[in-house]
Amino acid sequence: MDDALAFAPIAELATLIRRGELSPLELTEFYLERIERYDPALNAYLAVTAERARAQARAAEAQIAAGTYLGPLHGMPLAFKDLVDVAGLPTTGGSTLLRDNIAAADATVARRLFAAGVVLLGKTHLVEFAFGGTGVNHHYGTPVNPWDPEIHRLPGGSSSGSGVAVAAGLAPAALGSDTGGSVRIPASFCGLTGLKPTFGLLPNTGVLPLDPTLDSIGPLCRTAQDCALLFQAMADPALCDLPGDSLVDRLEGEVAGLRLCFPREFFWDDVDAEVEAAVRASARVFADLGVYVDEIALEVLNDLAEWRSGPSTTAVEAYLYHRRNLEAHCDQFDPIVSARILDGRDVLAADFLEQLRVRDELRCKARMALENVDFLITPTTPFAAPALDAVDRDDVYFSINGLCLRNTIAVNLLDLCAVSLPCGFTRDGLPIGLQLIGHPRDEARLLRLARVFEQATDYNLLTPALDACA
Amino acid sequence: MDDALAFAPIAELATLIRRGELSPLELTEFYLERIERYDPALNAYLAVTAERARAQARAAEAQIAAGTYLGPLHGMPLAFKDLVDVAGLPTTGGSTLLRDNIAAADATVARRLFAAGVVLLGKTHLVEFAFGGTGVNHHYGTPVNPWDPEIHRLPGGSSSGSGVAVAAGLAPAALGSDTGGSVRIPASFCGLTGLKPTFGLLPNTGVLPLDPTLDSIGPLCRTAQDCALLFQAMADPALCDLPGDSLVDRLEGEVAGLRLCFPREFFWDDVDAEVEAAVRASARVFADLGVYVDEIALEVLNDLAEWRSGPSTTAVEAYLYHRRNLEAHCDQFDPIVSARILDGRDVLAADFLEQLRVRDELRCKARMALENVDFLITPTTPFAAPALDAVDRDDVYFSINGLCLRNTIAVNLLDLCAVSLPCGFTRDGLPIGLQLIGHPRDEARLLRLARVFEQATDYNLLTPALDACA
Repeated sequence: MDDALAFAPIAELATLIRRGELSPLELTEFYLERIERYDPALNAYLAVTAERARAQARAAEAQIAAGTYLGPLHGMPLAFKDLVDVAGLPTTGGSTLLRDNIAAADATVARRLFAAGVVLLGKTHLVEFAFGGTGVNHHYGTPVNPWDPEIHRLPGGSSSGSGVAVAAGLAPAALGSDTGGSVRIPASFCGLTGLKPTFGLLPNTGVLPLDPTLDSIGPLCRTAQDCALLFQAMADPALCDLPGDSLVDRLEGEVAGLRLCFPREFFWDDVDAEVEAAVRASARVFADLGVYVDEIALEVLNDLAEWRSGPSTTAVEAYLYHRRNLEAHCDQFDPIVSARILDGRDVLAADFLEQLRVRDELRCKARMALENVDFLITPTTPFAAPALDAVDRDDVYFSINGLCLRNTIAVNLLDLCAVSLPCGFTRDGLPIGLQLIGHPRDEARLLRLARVFEQATDYNLLTPALDACA
Repeated sequence: MDDALAFAPIAELATLIRRGELSPLELTEFYLERIERYDPALNAYLAVTAERARAQARAAEAQIAAGTYLGPLHGMPLAFKDLVDVAGLPTTGGSTLLRDNIAAADATVARRLFAAGVVLLGKTHLVEFAFGGTGVNHHYGTPVNPWDPEIHRLPGGSSSGSGVAVAAGLAPAALGSDTGGSVRIPASFCGLTGLKPTFGLLPNTGVLPLDPTLDSIGPLCRTAQDCALLFQAMADPALCDLPGDSLVDRLEGEVAGLRLCFPREFFWDDVDAEVEAAVRASARVFADLGVYVDEIALEVLNDLAEWRSGPSTTAVEAYLYHRRNLEAHCDQFDPIVSARILDGRDVLAADFLEQLRVRDELRCKARMALENVDFLITPTTPFAAPALDAVDRDDVYFSINGLCLRNTIAVNLLDLCAVSLPCGFTRDGLPIGLQLIGHPRDEARLLRLARVFEQATDYNLLTPALDACA
């Protein structure tokens, strides 16, 4: 098979499969071979489920041959972040404590994807318990960002392995989860399109929680269309107002006249000049497409910054979930994670509830402030992927991690949805991520806007050179 | 007017009004006179809104005379517990701190009742901030239970004034609120029928909160049918599956074949022998009506008792709400209330969330255990109204308060609905309350069961002698 196929979007592979020009088993073998060749250097997969993948691929192949074609995910290999339960496989959550945590049942999203014909290639690396934006994991190693053949750069996190697997062509797409940016940060650092859907639209049953009030499963893909395909396959149609294949269809609609605003503040502090230039330059692309591009001052962002200086409600939720393990085996936690979870230990209930109350107020305030805006546009991360060595140091880790998360977590906290997609490259050849932020449940228009941008720019078609990784 | 009318149910008064045999203004004046005569001794009303009542009654009278009859609440005088906002009136919550807390708008339930034609007689006494089951209030005095002409006995709380007002014929019905029993305990001590609807069916907007996860507005009435009338007038029809007048109609249905169970444990500890005998004797009444009466062991009740020994989630919610006032004016709180609120101050967020999590588990467990049961039957309170002197003492207050609440709070914590109704009298002539507990949203059948019981027994028709109070 042609190596270029490794970077083909799902939609394209699906067409080949549907036409009988590509067999699911052949495609699966192709990815398994690539994983064998490149993953020892890249470290994207925590577990490769080769035999299971072959069995699923064969079953899909037989079904299609028998005339039952389930749709564009039928026979499609995918990778899951290793906090999504798959029956019979361990769900480690990136922790050595859960090495033997065998799932009894499939997570609901996994079950829906398998029902659509998906083939599981394996489970991908993550920041321990998904609590961090850099991708660093001191137990299992930090996956290698494939865009730099020389320096070990951050993949972004927490869905680090999912980002690297898709960026390196070791899977056509992968599942991540996003509590504060964990889909969008690896999308930004790895040059992918990553969707953080509105909270609550995708079921979290069978997914290891970080903060049950914010966790959203989300896909990391090569295109906005692929994000739509996966989102729709995992969503509860009743919840999302998504009859039939309508989401993908709706990506074809008009974008002229939409109102896209650059927020004036908050998102631009400490942003690298190259990143800022690339994100601002995208205004031209959107304007040429008839989108009305403007600026907006959002006072709620100042309130949000102040809110974040209060107790971390996510740390409280994480502490509640991990308390027993922390009390018994604190030494077995990644110290960059246990320190953050322990921030939740001494928070008082009244302070916690007050934070939630204020968060609700900020959400209302944001909703009102955005009444006449369709989308916001910001850098996803303030910088392209930093070198691991520059970050993985006690003196700077937490502040860099905080910066990685700042622009994305605002979306989770304000209960919006967002997509990150590539909008250029640094002089060093590293991808730059653009974040488009939409109103709750406005995924269809959000992905439409991302799609017209990628079609106009083709940044998403560029792929890293992997010679050094083989 | 005949003094017997003071104890007529709403349904009967409404028939007279509809037929033009009783004028709303006449009825209102009648109650205002009774309040003037008896309330100085009984202390049910914190504020009597005489002029407003006359104006509303006149308006209703004019409307009815003009041919617009809104239904059985048109021109009907009622009293509201003084935590329900009425625009222009103070909502004190039974606290001197809120003496000047003038409401800007009507609570949603008040608005709906006024729209149905209700006439407000006044606002009734309560335990400060509704946090207590006895009815004791050290600022405004403890309302007097009208069933004992000699000894000042507890009215029950926290809706103490609403219970006394209706029991003494100073209003045909009144609104209370029930977070742990605050409608049912005064119903039990005062010989009334009190409904605690399923949480969430009646809107709490404009009602001073105690615990927003448990608070339910509920009516104190003379009959189950009156409870149905008021419940339906306040409920959001879409939420309650209550088109038109169907709830009252549905009270007429069959009860034969329903399965009613006495729980074996929990509800009977420390229950007075007379109370136990009266409640157990009701089995005969139900059996004669064709109800299948049985016993059931409910393990979840042991878990619930254990849960209650953990941190109080209600104290946390109350502390959050009252924190600023407590910090500034702790001395101005009723000490029996501030002590309970302060229990919430030092609770850790993780412990609070864990309590909520376990509470959810207990709710599931209860749901499963009750799968083949239609209703539970228990004493509402372990004893009839105790003397104020025996309770209002530092050494016993909190333990007696806890006992007052035990049987009722189980319903709130397990997310069920319940009604309390009289099932007999002690040798001393004090009413005994029977609690019927139903599945969530099963108010129609619950009230039907209460109605057939009261029709078969007529305990609800007995009234106290008020000669000593005049």
